[in-house]
Amino acid sequence: MTESPAPVPALPRFGKVAFIGIGLIGSSLAQVMRQQGLAGHIAATARSAETRAKALALGLADSAPDSLADTVAGADLVMLCAPVGTYGGLARAFGPHLKPGAIVSDVGSVKQAVVRDVGPYLPEGVHFVPGHPIAGTEHSGPEAGFPELFRDRWCILTPPPGTDAGAVATVRALWEAAGSQVEVMDPAHHDQVLAITSHLPHLIAYTIVGTADDLEEHLMREVLKYSASGFRDFTRIAASDPVMWRDVFLNNREAVLDILQRFTEDLTALQRAIRWGEGDKLEELFRATREIRRGIMDYGQHVPEDVKMRRLRRGEDPAD
Amino acid sequence: MTESPAPVPALPRFGKVAFIGIGLIGSSLAQVMRQQGLAGHIAATARSAETRAKALALGLADSAPDSLADTVAGADLVMLCAPVGTYGGLARAFGPHLKPGAIVSDVGSVKQAVVRDVGPYLPEGVHFVPGHPIAGTEHSGPEAGFPELFRDRWCILTPPPGTDAGAVATVRALWEAAGSQVEVMDPAHHDQVLAITSHLPHLIAYTIVGTADDLEEHLMREVLKYSASGFRDFTRIAASDPVMWRDVFLNNREAVLDILQRFTEDLTALQRAIRWGEGDKLEELFRATREIRRGIMDYGQHVPEDVKMRRLRRGEDPAD
Ligand SMILES: NC(=O)c1ccc[n+]([C@@H]2O[C@H](COP(=O)([O-])OP(=O)(O)OC[C@H]3O[C@@H](n4cnc5c(N)ncnc54)[C@H](OP(=O)(O)O)[C@@H]3O)[C@@H](O)[C@H]2O)c1
Ligand SMILES: NC(=O)c1ccc[n+]([C@@H]2O[C@H](COP(=O)([O-])OP(=O)(O)OC[C@H]3O[C@@H](n4cnc5c(N)ncnc54)[C@H](OP(=O)(O)O)[C@@H]3O)[C@@H](O)[C@H]2O)c1
Repeated sequence: MTESPAPVPALPRFGKVAFIGIGLIGSSLAQVMRQQGLAGHIAATARSAETRAKALALGLADSAPDSLADTVAGADLVMLCAPVGTYGGLARAFGPHLKPGAIVSDVGSVKQAVVRDVGPYLPEGVHFVPGHPIAGTEHSGPEAGFPELFRDRWCILTPPPGTDAGAVATVRALWEAAGSQVEVMDPAHHDQVLAITSHLPHLIAYTIVGTADDLEEHLMREVLKYSASGFRDFTRIAASDPVMWRDVFLNNREAVLDILQRFTEDLTALQRAIRWGEGDKLEELFRATREIRRGIMDYGQHVPEDVKMRRLRRGEDPAD
Repeated sequence: MTESPAPVPALPRFGKVAFIGIGLIGSSLAQVMRQQGLAGHIAATARSAETRAKALALGLADSAPDSLADTVAGADLVMLCAPVGTYGGLARAFGPHLKPGAIVSDVGSVKQAVVRDVGPYLPEGVHFVPGHPIAGTEHSGPEAGFPELFRDRWCILTPPPGTDAGAVATVRALWEAAGSQVEVMDPAHHDQVLAITSHLPHLIAYTIVGTADDLEEHLMREVLKYSASGFRDFTRIAASDPVMWRDVFLNNREAVLDILQRFTEDLTALQRAIRWGEGDKLEELFRATREIRRGIMDYGQHVPEDVKMRRLRRGEDPAD
């Protein structure tokens, strides 16, 4: 990903950090902070007592209060790591308890809705730096995290215009410490790009696996058995967290419906070409899409060898 | 994949083997036969002089005639490894030159059309055992092959009723020697199962990548850049050979259109749920699809450790 060796950035150090939600993403980031000693104290809260207890047992947090007020009290950094549909209600509840000068950030997969839902509840003097690490797996919960999750990945920040530059630099430094490359972007643009690269693919994968799920029992068994020929790749994507993805679609409705409309038109054209036996049309499209893969591979050429090896060991595409 | 250690099958040995088409699949199978000394002589033909020359240079074949008659003359086994759309014309041309008692087999991704197109041109006394190895990559051509391609994969045979049992056993033994597990199936059933597990996923992947291809230039660049979040998986599938896939869709039209119709209905329902903010419906579907992944993982549990390691090294999903 990096084209030339970047200067080693200064490590950000926080007195107290508060995690609201400590699942796959939150626990991975907490482990980064632990490993590098970036936080004097980590407080983590979650919806369930079980997850809070796990956060303590796994050593992810020093304290795991059940109240939002206690979690954010005195925190220099508050990281929202719950599904995005919860953000508005959470911000309304913890907003009044924020310390002046605190930074509020998040990891949500949509960004306009986060700005819309959280922004209004943050008092004057608190800095708001929304973010989205482009990294994940299909697993969830506090045990699913690992500190390498963000290494050699992108992280997109979408600070509202006029956000304190120092606060943005601090959040950037945090993600760089996690091994990510950081880009700053307009939230509407983020949502449009991610609708295409992530939200539509997930929607399609959920649909196709859902379609298979409605098959007669005996056919279903064989679909599982012979899944290696394409279908299996979709089932991995469609195993992602249901609540997280519900919230993504509800909160990026316009951009998702827009790209879905285009997709449906294209699919209808293909369907027609198959029905009428228009081989030339099919072949032409299938040739064009090959080029796109090459474009992605070109981006992947800059991935260093040790990164490729790590990804291979995790069973991932080394050239991503 | 194997639940209990299978008895080691007797190796099939052929005097002369003829490959018609020697790309990814043909060259992989030729390498298996070379490695294990299963053929006294391998003849390979292809459309282009370039591929025929490569087949010789790579040591895949002992002879590479440009005439079909010379290729199949005296062959005990004729393996069709070209795109399925060519099979009818090829069979018409080589049929009269087949040696009595020869076995004709193939590796095509659809099976009803193959039976329909090839069957009528085979003379009495020649055995027809159509097959389909469920294995592949997105690469093509004679250099793309490797002998491990079929290891720990399924191979489906669809011999017409009344086919000589000895011929079926010989083809089975060949794929077992390649490391595959063999199943015998009705061709219509094969086409229905594969429409779901392979043809629809490929069609969807081609469409989604094609949709992205029509985006404005600046958006396209960012789609490539942030492709890791789902889209990339589709681009790999959509990089598969255009001619092969054109022929698959043209030759499995009914089954593909049927499952595509179901898929489109399901997608429309999801679209509606997003438009009207029906979170419960979304969440319910997303939960159901998770279970399917578990089902596939259960199938994968039987994959031995060394196979997992090999797959990992090839950048594949170890648990497939
Ligand atoms: N997974 C990915 O691939 C990925 C990638 C990039 C960004 N993201 C974003 O990261 C965020 C978290 O995703 P994740 O994958 O880490 O999810 P996860 O593993 O399911 O964890 C979610 C966490 O949020 C907590 N939570 C849920 N509702 C809450 C509430 N009302 N109040 C407080 N805590 C609550 C959960 O607590 P309980 O365990 O008690 O329910 C859990 O600790 C989401 O906004 C998602 O969009 C995810
Ligand atoms: N790729 C997969 O994932 C996969 C998996 C399972 C089954 N299959 C099936 O395997 C078959 C071959 O696929 P592949 O991936 O090996 O394709 P490939 O790498 O593109 O090779 C195709 C071969 O067929 C030759 N050919 C094309 N037209 C011909 C003609 N009219 N006469 C003689 N030879 C001709 C080509 O010769 P030139 O190089 O001269 O054009 C080439 O040698 C297809 O039927 C496909 O459905 C593929």
